[in-house]
Amino acid sequence: MFLIDCGEGTQIRLREEKIKFSRIKNIFISHLHGDHFYGLIGLINTFKLLGRSVDLNIYGPIGIKEVIKLQLKLSNSWTDFRLYFHELNNSKAELVYEDSIVKVKTIPLIHRVYTNGFLFQEKAGLRKIETEKVKLYNVPICDYENLKNGKDFINEKGQTIKNSDLTLPPKKPFSYAFCSDTVFNPQMVNQIKNVDLLYHESTFLNEHKDLATKTLHSTAEQAGKIASLSNVGKLMLGHFSTRYRDKKMFIQEANKQFDNVFLAKEGETYKF
Amino acid sequence: MFLIDCGEGTQIRLREEKIKFSRIKNIFISHLHGDHFYGLIGLINTFKLLGRSVDLNIYGPIGIKEVIKLQLKLSNSWTDFRLYFHELNNSKAELVYEDSIVKVKTIPLIHRVYTNGFLFQEKAGLRKIETEKVKLYNVPICDYENLKNGKDFINEKGQTIKNSDLTLPPKKPFSYAFCSDTVFNPQMVNQIKNVDLLYHESTFLNEHKDLATKTLHSTAEQAGKIASLSNVGKLMLGHFSTRYRDKKMFIQEANKQFDNVFLAKEGETYKF
Repeated sequence: MFLIDCGEGTQIRLREEKIKFSRIKNIFISHLHGDHFYGLIGLINTFKLLGRSVDLNIYGPIGIKEVIKLQLKLSNSWTDFRLYFHELNNSKAELVYEDSIVKVKTIPLIHRVYTNGFLFQEKAGLRKIETEKVKLYNVPICDYENLKNGKDFINEKGQTIKNSDLTLPPKKPFSYAFCSDTVFNPQMVNQIKNVDLLYHESTFLNEHKDLATKTLHSTAEQAGKIASLSNVGKLMLGHFSTRYRDKKMFIQEANKQFDNVFLAKEGETYKF
Repeated sequence: MFLIDCGEGTQIRLREEKIKFSRIKNIFISHLHGDHFYGLIGLINTFKLLGRSVDLNIYGPIGIKEVIKLQLKLSNSWTDFRLYFHELNNSKAELVYEDSIVKVKTIPLIHRVYTNGFLFQEKAGLRKIETEKVKLYNVPICDYENLKNGKDFINEKGQTIKNSDLTLPPKKPFSYAFCSDTVFNPQMVNQIKNVDLLYHESTFLNEHKDLATKTLHSTAEQAGKIASLSNVGKLMLGHFSTRYRDKKMFIQEANKQFDNVFLAKEGETYKF
């Protein structure tokens, strides 16, 4: 379970959603603006109060360690669990996390402070053994692992049975790109090409395009353009300026560039 | 309008209560534990986003300036309004704020980190002129100010008319003592004697008295004892441990020592 960004009050939302806190082992912080970061220290404190013993990894811009440590020092509330900071300051994409099923890379963004999006890429799974086929070709169980990894099978007579005759391809690996906050920046397109789901900020509508440029945010239509250029599966919009009452316009304007758009909604669960 | 302590999410509550943010000019922070302090940086940021120009004064333990400044630096979001830090490190009570109607003093508390409560004392108001009496004694208007300030009136014949024959006493000045967090500490009694309202923390019930001593918190009965020793008007209890579902026990246990007790409730408005 990954947590991406942690604005003020995140721990309250997590509790409302009945998320088991100890399952959060990796937190990715895009940048050190308050709405993405000010809830982190409170969450760490709550982890401590709950008696957490599991390690916590935090990936975020350089400086994040200093400010969290200072707050822990001032409140004399050092954690009993291990807190690892992975401070980022690279202007190029880099691999920051990897385990047996997923890789996470930074997506360099352009905003008022040093900012990264994050690209989550599921690794290709193993091929699935077709039970009837392996029986038919008398494949011994000790060869199953090789089959799952894509190798062909050579039987006792020296005949080669193609892997594709014995297994089915794995589920297509899922990928998710999280891009907030950023000005319209087609440089990211190469990196997020073909992701299944793109979250892209759309703080403004076209009527405030100048303001988007000035504050290094994006409009819904610009987010749609990125989605279209990147040929993503779906586009999720978020980070709406509170000035807009009617959020439907975000869909309409993004739709000028890209069809499959929906709005992120607080407290909603999305199944991939 | 004063804000006392500022835990995570305070700005959300203030918005729910429709508090006009610009009216908050003085914020008093008792100590740097998260539930009393982590909402401050977010509130300052929101003030900035709202275009605040009014000065903001912050009274709190030494270190508060460093941590707020570091966060403003990392997010490159320096305020456009003036931010004054009044850092406290005195172990004795001191006057920290004064204007024409109120004085605020620290109340040194004993907790796991350096902590102060705050004593708000309304200044004595002016005496009220009795319109019929001043007519009766032919007091000229230019003498009214003296009467309000308690002086007797000497008429043209040199006769002294006592102030009490011409005016009514001012409303009794109101006083409020905020004491959180603290272990049971009768040393504070002298300072808070006869206050109209005492807020005293009561994290625990008697069954966890040992835990209160260990964590430097108080039980409801101990809070009642302080209220009784201090001869306060009313006792407001708060800061309840989440382990207790039924809050009525806090009243019952405090009532062993003091009658006029009520529980602080989130989002409630109390008229003094």
